[in-house]
Amino acid sequence: MSACLCLAFLLFSVVADATYIPRRSHHLLSSRQNRKTSKSNTELPSHFETRYFPQNLDHFSFQPESYQVFHQKYLINSRFWRKGGPIFVYTGNEGDIEWFASNTGFMLDIAPKFKALLVFIEHRFYGESKPHKLANTLGFLNSQQALADYAILIRSLKQNLTSEASPVIVFGGSYGGMLAAWFRLKYPHIAIGALASSAPILNFDNIVPSSSFYDTVSQDFKEVSVNCFEVIKRSWGEMEVFSTIKDGLQELSKMFRTCKTLHSVDSASGWLETAFIETAMVNYPTPANFMAPLPAYPVGQMCKIMDELPLEASNLERAFAAASLYYNYSGSVTCFDMENHTDSHGLNGWGWQACTEMVMPMSCSNQTMFRPFESDDEKANQEYCLREYGVKPRPNWITTEFGGQRIEMVLKRFGSNIIFSNGLQDPWSGGGVLKNISSSIIALVTRKGAHHTDLRAATKDDPEWLKQQRRQEVAIIEKWISEYYNDLEQEEQAK
Amino acid sequence: MSACLCLAFLLFSVVADATYIPRRSHHLLSSRQNRKTSKSNTELPSHFETRYFPQNLDHFSFQPESYQVFHQKYLINSRFWRKGGPIFVYTGNEGDIEWFASNTGFMLDIAPKFKALLVFIEHRFYGESKPHKLANTLGFLNSQQALADYAILIRSLKQNLTSEASPVIVFGGSYGGMLAAWFRLKYPHIAIGALASSAPILNFDNIVPSSSFYDTVSQDFKEVSVNCFEVIKRSWGEMEVFSTIKDGLQELSKMFRTCKTLHSVDSASGWLETAFIETAMVNYPTPANFMAPLPAYPVGQMCKIMDELPLEASNLERAFAAASLYYNYSGSVTCFDMENHTDSHGLNGWGWQACTEMVMPMSCSNQTMFRPFESDDEKANQEYCLREYGVKPRPNWITTEFGGQRIEMVLKRFGSNIIFSNGLQDPWSGGGVLKNISSSIIALVTRKGAHHTDLRAATKDDPEWLKQQRRQEVAIIEKWISEYYNDLEQEEQAK
Repeated sequence: MSACLCLAFLLFSVVADATYIPRRSHHLLSSRQNRKTSKSNTELPSHFETRYFPQNLDHFSFQPESYQVFHQKYLINSRFWRKGGPIFVYTGNEGDIEWFASNTGFMLDIAPKFKALLVFIEHRFYGESKPHKLANTLGFLNSQQALADYAILIRSLKQNLTSEASPVIVFGGSYGGMLAAWFRLKYPHIAIGALASSAPILNFDNIVPSSSFYDTVSQDFKEVSVNCFEVIKRSWGEMEVFSTIKDGLQELSKMFRTCKTLHSVDSASGWLETAFIETAMVNYPTPANFMAPLPAYPVGQMCKIMDELPLEASNLERAFAAASLYYNYSGSVTCFDMENHTDSHGLNGWGWQACTEMVMPMSCSNQTMFRPFESDDEKANQEYCLREYGVKPRPNWITTEFGGQRIEMVLKRFGSNIIFSNGLQDPWSGGGVLKNISSSIIALVTRKGAHHTDLRAATKDDPEWLKQQRRQEVAIIEKWISEYYNDLEQEEQAK
Repeated sequence: MSACLCLAFLLFSVVADATYIPRRSHHLLSSRQNRKTSKSNTELPSHFETRYFPQNLDHFSFQPESYQVFHQKYLINSRFWRKGGPIFVYTGNEGDIEWFASNTGFMLDIAPKFKALLVFIEHRFYGESKPHKLANTLGFLNSQQALADYAILIRSLKQNLTSEASPVIVFGGSYGGMLAAWFRLKYPHIAIGALASSAPILNFDNIVPSSSFYDTVSQDFKEVSVNCFEVIKRSWGEMEVFSTIKDGLQELSKMFRTCKTLHSVDSASGWLETAFIETAMVNYPTPANFMAPLPAYPVGQMCKIMDELPLEASNLERAFAAASLYYNYSGSVTCFDMENHTDSHGLNGWGWQACTEMVMPMSCSNQTMFRPFESDDEKANQEYCLREYGVKPRPNWITTEFGGQRIEMVLKRFGSNIIFSNGLQDPWSGGGVLKNISSSIIALVTRKGAHHTDLRAATKDDPEWLKQQRRQEVAIIEKWISEYYNDLEQEEQAK
């Protein structure tokens, strides 16, 4: 999830006509989106079948429109399942469900061991899971409705499979990880446990410092090379010069190899920022293609590119070369289209969520390698959201509904069976749960991990720390399941 | 709560034009209601202040209408409170909040010991807490919205009192008890514990036998006197005769001292049933005035009245005399108005809830002292609700949202700090949690207790079992609070 970049990019695509830019409302996944929804470019993973489930538009009212039905997409893989065995459910987040299924190989990897059924449920209002009258019903796009969708779908599925005693474990990464954790907390009667990977559930209501996101990105670069950090930091000033000189935009466009002449220097800044932020997020230890195809540890690779340029190269040229890794690792791109972004993963909709419930304050200090900005105040954000979407945000709602404040005190005596996994390279990790809360609400933290690294498919080159993390997760899940079956047996005997 | 009677009475008032009568959708509190809403006849208890809090109509969508505001009434008593001390919140149920405040003396009794603030919150769409456009917004009357109201109001209240670290305990009886238990389960970050008295949270989706309600009422009478049980059982047949003979309704009206000639024999049957059911519910060990003014252990008194009639009295005359205790304990009533019920506690609204989410299956076998009836099937209930309210019930929704199935298995490893108290004389006790689930999810069961007896104000004549039950409740609540303050201290020290 790339909160920042999403923010950044969502922004930069509308920068021309916007008078106020809420830099804080970052997307959790990808910034490279605009308002157009495009068809998913991710294929259905093999052995998965696509199904659709009729859902009421509104679970929390009985107004006539609440009975309007939309068809929720889900993917199902029963290759390894033995009836009565566990059901592993991915609580889909803000995009096409195939994309998450393709990038959550961990579930597929461990399915044979558990003889588990795999189910990936698409989040309402994303991908294909949209009501017909989308424009007038966007108000029903929110996390509580999504959790209720999952609860209803899972119950119905188990009933149809006549496997109602099957234990369900929910999995999710990023916003999907938040949903997995919240699902366990709100629906313990439906899921016996949750693996919530890179879930910044504390990124609300100023529970954690709003600066942590940009601080972490900057730290990721600094750790690789202080020089790299400094180059990027200095590049913004060099770029600003182009907005003051004659023919500056043409010159900048040439230097940045844009397909069309830029309308604004900010587009190029946003393009750079996104590259650094998203690369920090997916700083995986092996080559991957989540947001973009990238080599192993791409932050290091970026800094290497900067260092290897000739001595006379400017900071801006170095920053551009580094960012090109993110946009053109294959080398096949001949020009960059910085002002016309495509939404290849169906992420459109997050802007709305950020303007209603997902109000995640964000700021950026001058200690980072980015251009600093203050955390938006509530009033400014409200004005933006009213203008942009005609909606008023409810900035305290998520913590009222799901908690977060004093989380250790609350959950040390309430709830169980949640793994919060975080990699400290992940810009979102600052909003995650990084300490064990109780004997069964566990934090698994890896120093070198990025955005839900653990959920990715295992590769032969995985480092030992990652293998170890996954082994721990499997052991914990095994314990939950065996405890559940023991309880079930005892219950049967008591009858 | 008188489910049965409510059902019964709600019914009997519309019996003339209804082709299908859903006898199962009993009210949890009182049956003596009709569609008219009347002003509460209960006064504000002393030292309480009335306040109003603006609430959004819909917490779970961001549709334009969700922002419509209504004013939620709450009562507050800060006489014993010391800032930073605990806040005891009553999660109001389906009626005027003053009525619950007046009948939940337990909270007032223990407030000085805990130096607690007392808050009674009225449930949305009851009493005065109604949106202006009531007719078009009834869909927003449901338990999840009510719980969210409570969460928002409590957070705001604590903030206004600058006492955000105050521990909150929720209390409730009957439907209010269900709300208290669910509130602890869904909002553990807002309430550290719940006392859920007479909360039939298992009375959904056939988790418990649908016959338990009428079985318990019958058992209550049988325990006092088998003869009493038999007299009532035989009285229905004697009454039916009046529907077959010439001038039967006139004769029955005379025997039953009705103010106007009855239109239907069923009105008189319903009137009797309600008396027996509600008296079983409030079979308190001391004189009380919850549903009606009654002496101590009124079931026994009713049977005594029956026994003391002359030998020649018929079963029906005996049943009438017994029921008169319920309607006319004071002796001041000169005639009974059996077909024109008043809603003196603002209970109107439950019929809607029973037709949407509160679908509590109920049946009555011929082993009881009542006329038997089958549990309604889903289709018949659906037809009734569509005809009556234009709404389709969601009979599996409550268990999907709040759980209930396999509750012991689920909650023995999840959640904490709930007391489920039940009296086995209470017809609703069959749907309650009657066994300890874990070391902190506790069932307190009293053999002679009736409908939330423990929540009533202490009297000098309280029996030892009731004193003992309340002492246990106080001790458990004390433990929760002291644990909380210890945790808070540790948290402060760790900073």
